[in-house]
Amino acid sequence: MASPFDIAIIGFGKIARDQHVPAILGSERFALAATVDSHGPGLDGVPHFRSLQALLESGVKADAVAVCTPPQVRGQIARQAIAAGLAVLLEKPPAETPGGFAALKALAGRAGVPLFTAWHSRFAAMVGEAKAWLAGKTVIAGRISWRESARKWHPGQRWLWEAGGLGVFDPGINALSILTELLPDPVVVTSSAFEVPSNCATPIAATMTLESGDAVIAVDLNFLEEHGEVWELELTTDGGTLLLSRGGAALSIDGAPAKTALDTEYATLYAHFADLLDRGESDADPAPLGLVADAFLIAEISPAEPYHD
Amino acid sequence: MASPFDIAIIGFGKIARDQHVPAILGSERFALAATVDSHGPGLDGVPHFRSLQALLESGVKADAVAVCTPPQVRGQIARQAIAAGLAVLLEKPPAETPGGFAALKALAGRAGVPLFTAWHSRFAAMVGEAKAWLAGKTVIAGRISWRESARKWHPGQRWLWEAGGLGVFDPGINALSILTELLPDPVVVTSSAFEVPSNCATPIAATMTLESGDAVIAVDLNFLEEHGEVWELELTTDGGTLLLSRGGAALSIDGAPAKTALDTEYATLYAHFADLLDRGESDADPAPLGLVADAFLIAEISPAEPYHD
Repeated sequence: MASPFDIAIIGFGKIARDQHVPAILGSERFALAATVDSHGPGLDGVPHFRSLQALLESGVKADAVAVCTPPQVRGQIARQAIAAGLAVLLEKPPAETPGGFAALKALAGRAGVPLFTAWHSRFAAMVGEAKAWLAGKTVIAGRISWRESARKWHPGQRWLWEAGGLGVFDPGINALSILTELLPDPVVVTSSAFEVPSNCATPIAATMTLESGDAVIAVDLNFLEEHGEVWELELTTDGGTLLLSRGGAALSIDGAPAKTALDTEYATLYAHFADLLDRGESDADPAPLGLVADAFLIAEISPAEPYHD
Repeated sequence: MASPFDIAIIGFGKIARDQHVPAILGSERFALAATVDSHGPGLDGVPHFRSLQALLESGVKADAVAVCTPPQVRGQIARQAIAAGLAVLLEKPPAETPGGFAALKALAGRAGVPLFTAWHSRFAAMVGEAKAWLAGKTVIAGRISWRESARKWHPGQRWLWEAGGLGVFDPGINALSILTELLPDPVVVTSSAFEVPSNCATPIAATMTLESGDAVIAVDLNFLEEHGEVWELELTTDGGTLLLSRGGAALSIDGAPAKTALDTEYATLYAHFADLLDRGESDADPAPLGLVADAFLIAEISPAEPYHD
C-alpha cells in the first residue's frame, strides 16, 4: 500500500466539516495534513492556518488541497496551489466563471498538476446504475425538480446571494452535473427565467428549458421549498422512464419502488481523486458550470421579495 | 477564376443592408442568390423568401448563407442550413449562448460544413497592424471604452433589450473580439457591473475587469453616449502604448497622430470566408461570446431608468 496523500482543506465551512473531513479521515489513501480558513476555527490536533500562503510557508507537507471556499475566491487559491505544485480538488462550482475555469485548467496542464472538478452528485449512490440502465436507450424527454429551503440548508451563507454566488444554482448545479453525466449528447440551454430577490444579486428560483439530442428537459429550481427536499431527475426514454430522487441516492424505473444503496458519495469521490493522483491525471469537466452561465446570459428576470435567513 | 459562391442572406435588417449586401455585390467570389426575411422586403431583382425553408424548397441554388438575424433565432436557422449542407457565416454574436455555439460547431464538424464566426471588427483596417506591433511585447495594462447612442444606432431594435439580446454587449462584443484577437493569453472576466433599465432584460451600460497574463484591462461599455461615438481599445506594453480608435479603423502609438487606412472591413471578412470555402474549413471562435456569458454570470446589477428609443 502506498503511503497516504497529505491533503489540506482550504475553506473550512459547512461542506468541509460535513463531508470532506469524514471522507478524508475514513480513507486509507489520504491523511488530513492541515486546514485553512481565513476566519473560523479548525480541528483539534490538525494544523490550522489563516491562508494557503501561511500553510505553504509553515513547512507542513501537503500533496494536494481540497478547495471548499465560496466560488468567488476559488480561482486565486487554486492558482496559488498549482504554482506550488499541489494537486487540486475543487468543490463545485470549480470556478467563478467558465472562462476562469478554462484558464485554470490550462495552467494545471502546463504545470503537470492533477485538477479534479469534484461534482459530488455524480458519485451519489444510484447515478452509476442509472447511467448503465440508459445505455442503448434514447432519451425523449426529461424533468428536473430541485427544491430545498435555503433557510434550512444555507443559513448565514451570504456569499450565495452575492454576485458570482449562483443563488439557487448552487444546489441546482448538482442536478446539472448528474444530467450531463447521464446524457450522451451535449445539453443546450434554450430558455431560462429567474426570480431575483430585491436585496440579492443571484436567483432564488429559476426555470430553464434544456435540449439534448431530440429531448427537451424542463428544469425547476427553488430555494424556498419549506415542505421537505425535492431533488429529482426524471428521464423518459424509448425503453421506459427513469427517476433519480434524493439527489441521486434513489432510483426508480417505470414507477417501481425506489432502489437505494449505502451513501458513499464523498468516499467514492475521494477514491476517484486518489486514483487520479496515482496516475497523475486530471478530471476537469466544466459542462455544468457552462450551463449555468448560459442560463444567466439569456435569463428573463423577475423581481422577488427580499430574502433574509 | 472559380465561379462565384451563391450566397443567401438570412435576416434582412440593418446590418445586412448596410454591410453584407455591398460586400457581396462588390466581391467577385460571391453572387447574391437570395434574401430571406420573416417580415420585411428584399431587393429588386433578387429572389426573396419568408423563411430558409421556403428558400430551400424553391430550387434557387445556394452554397452558403450569411445569418444576420437577431441572436435569439440564429441557432435554429444555422442548424437548418447545416442540415441542408450549406456553409454558414454567422454575424456576431454567433449564437445565443456559448453552449449553443459549441453544439452548432460540433454539428457543422460532423456534417463537414464550413462555419465562420464573422467577428467583423477583427477585420477593421488597423487591427492587423496593431497585432503586428504587439508581437514580442508584453501587455501590462489595458482599457476599453466602447460608447455609442442606442437611440442613434439601434432605433426599433427591440430584440437588443429582450433576454438573449445582449444589450450594450451587442456593440461591446466587437471590442472583446478585437481584444481576444490581439492578446496571446486567455482573457478572464474577474468582475462586472451592469445597469439594467427597468423595462429591459439586458444592460444599457456595463463595466468589467478583465485579466490576461499579468495585465488588468478595465472595460467601460455604454449605450447612452450622445456626444459622438467612442470606440477605443488601449494597451500599455513594456514597449509603448497602442491606441486603437474608431472601432479598429485608426491606430496611434505612444500618442502619435492616428494612422488610418481605407475601410474594407466587410470586404476583407468576405474574402476570408471565400478562402474558408475554397479550403472547406471553418473559423469558429467562441471566445468573445464566452466573455459576455462570464460577465452576466457574476454581474452586480443596478437598476436604471426605463429605456425608450
